[in-house]
Amino acid sequence: MLTPEILADPVQLTRALVDVESVSGNEAELADQVEAALRAAPHLTVERHGNVVLAGTRLGRPQRVILAGHLDTVPVADNVPSVVEGDVIHGCGTSDMKSGVALALHLAATVADPRYDVTYVFYDCEEVESERNGLNRLARTHPHLLAADFAILLEPTYGLVEAGCQGTLRARVTAVGQRAHSARSWLGINAIHAAGEIMTRLAAYEPRTVTIDGCTYREGLNAVRVSGGIAGNVIPDECQVEVNYRFAPDRTEDEAAAHVRDLFTGFAVEITDSAPAAAPGLSGPIVKELLDAVGQPPQAKLGWTDVARFATLGVPALNFGPGDPNLAHKRDERVEIPKIVAGAGVLRRWLSA
Amino acid sequence: MLTPEILADPVQLTRALVDVESVSGNEAELADQVEAALRAAPHLTVERHGNVVLAGTRLGRPQRVILAGHLDTVPVADNVPSVVEGDVIHGCGTSDMKSGVALALHLAATVADPRYDVTYVFYDCEEVESERNGLNRLARTHPHLLAADFAILLEPTYGLVEAGCQGTLRARVTAVGQRAHSARSWLGINAIHAAGEIMTRLAAYEPRTVTIDGCTYREGLNAVRVSGGIAGNVIPDECQVEVNYRFAPDRTEDEAAAHVRDLFTGFAVEITDSAPAAAPGLSGPIVKELLDAVGQPPQAKLGWTDVARFATLGVPALNFGPGDPNLAHKRDERVEIPKIVAGAGVLRRWLSA
Repeated sequence: MLTPEILADPVQLTRALVDVESVSGNEAELADQVEAALRAAPHLTVERHGNVVLAGTRLGRPQRVILAGHLDTVPVADNVPSVVEGDVIHGCGTSDMKSGVALALHLAATVADPRYDVTYVFYDCEEVESERNGLNRLARTHPHLLAADFAILLEPTYGLVEAGCQGTLRARVTAVGQRAHSARSWLGINAIHAAGEIMTRLAAYEPRTVTIDGCTYREGLNAVRVSGGIAGNVIPDECQVEVNYRFAPDRTEDEAAAHVRDLFTGFAVEITDSAPAAAPGLSGPIVKELLDAVGQPPQAKLGWTDVARFATLGVPALNFGPGDPNLAHKRDERVEIPKIVAGAGVLRRWLSA
Repeated sequence: MLTPEILADPVQLTRALVDVESVSGNEAELADQVEAALRAAPHLTVERHGNVVLAGTRLGRPQRVILAGHLDTVPVADNVPSVVEGDVIHGCGTSDMKSGVALALHLAATVADPRYDVTYVFYDCEEVESERNGLNRLARTHPHLLAADFAILLEPTYGLVEAGCQGTLRARVTAVGQRAHSARSWLGINAIHAAGEIMTRLAAYEPRTVTIDGCTYREGLNAVRVSGGIAGNVIPDECQVEVNYRFAPDRTEDEAAAHVRDLFTGFAVEITDSAPAAAPGLSGPIVKELLDAVGQPPQAKLGWTDVARFATLGVPALNFGPGDPNLAHKRDERVEIPKIVAGAGVLRRWLSA
């Protein structure tokens, strides 16, 4: 039960959220508690879609911002309920991202008169495959609920603004040969030997570094899987290398695909998976005010995040949260209490100014 | 039922043997028929061990030779019973190696007074894993039954003498790296990229050609499998390449292993499987008489065969049979009747001279 006392204190609230286990697929109880807390606030209009809970102000402000966070966590690793040691809270989801959810829920409950209209979005299944992602589902079925001028995802950034995100593309690069018995190998063409050239090009590849709006994106192109071979006595006629290209926001998915095809000229290239990059979008006045409140220069977000979903809806978005991204998904996941307090202060100043 | 009329004609006998299905593990009925046929010959002493049938003369000759063949076939592919078209018999095992078994069984039944003592060996499970191989089992449990001065395996050689056999060794060559998220690939070391060097060395490798006793052995060193990768967003920390080295009879297994380790200096190399080569052993007078009867120069055997099992027992051995080795294990497996007739003639001349 999220009492007004708990909602008023983002540190207590973080602990309360962590103590309700909500591994992906099991978010119902936590969504119920979040919904009840939001419905208790008279300045909010609340909607529920599955385990996605939305709450919005309707103050007639000229601009609307979104604060969003996912309710789910990776599987618990003996780290629920939470434990406090000094100024650190330990537990599953402390960093990724119940401390961020706590900030949004705390502001939703306590900032009745924000300078922008605000939509708070709490969603499920971010830690699993994209088709189950609650934000993805909502963007398909109710895109108007995500209309806004700007969005903040409260993913762990350790109190910095992490802007945009890199795109990610996977491709299957195939070397072909000709089967033969390995006792008469000269009658065949070894596809695994031929795939050596794919690895050679990857090893020699010099990834780009691209700076946009002061944010530096560092690309990467890597083999993530290789497989080939039929039997211990057969010269293999096929070898597949799966590569993952992480590309900066100055490239579209098509440009990224063309770049990968170019690099592997002479081999069959099949694009198997692709998600767009998102530009940092730091130029608007709303963002400038947030950056002023944070008081630290923005960084590039290198991993793919749901920021890109907002970007494809035409909503500039960035990541800002109290957790340390290096601790996400770890058994010793934790969050520093001063980062929660500072993050709440930054967002309160920005929303109330 | 292998009647005296059938036993007297190696062509009819080939068909009779093909028409009794004997896929590896299912040789009992064929072994029963072979045993009965041998027991009907008063000049032979017969023993049975599982589905291995042995028959020997005891004429007190100064030298003993072995004629050996396996009773089993690979799985039937709509090609039993046999069909004759012109001078070709079609059917499962026609080439590999019931036409060879027919020669041995025909000679066993009809050559009562050979110039050498002869041991005929018919065994099971040659087409499957080595530990089930009947000859391998007999060599472990009753090695004295395989004592001889010389052995012929009637494997398909298309009427040529194929001498010795190459050794075969498998090794796992491992490239290691360091895991990282593929969005921050520079924090890791990509083991698949590192494995490119293994392929580069394989592609540049120049296999030896070794001539012994006039037989030319052509080596080969090949990747037969490659695997690596953890997930689509992880820089892999391990990539394994399985290589198969086919080596000429001038190298021992230890020398072959050392050669592979040398080639892959800088990588972890684990020998996973090894079988020795067998020297052609063409120097003795018995072999010379056989070669004279064949009237064609001997060839090197490149694939590994049970000849190497005889070699490790100290028995020089070679392959000689009517089947075409290129048709073994094929759906359209077949044997040419003139090759059966010629092969029977060669062996009869050699044994009776």
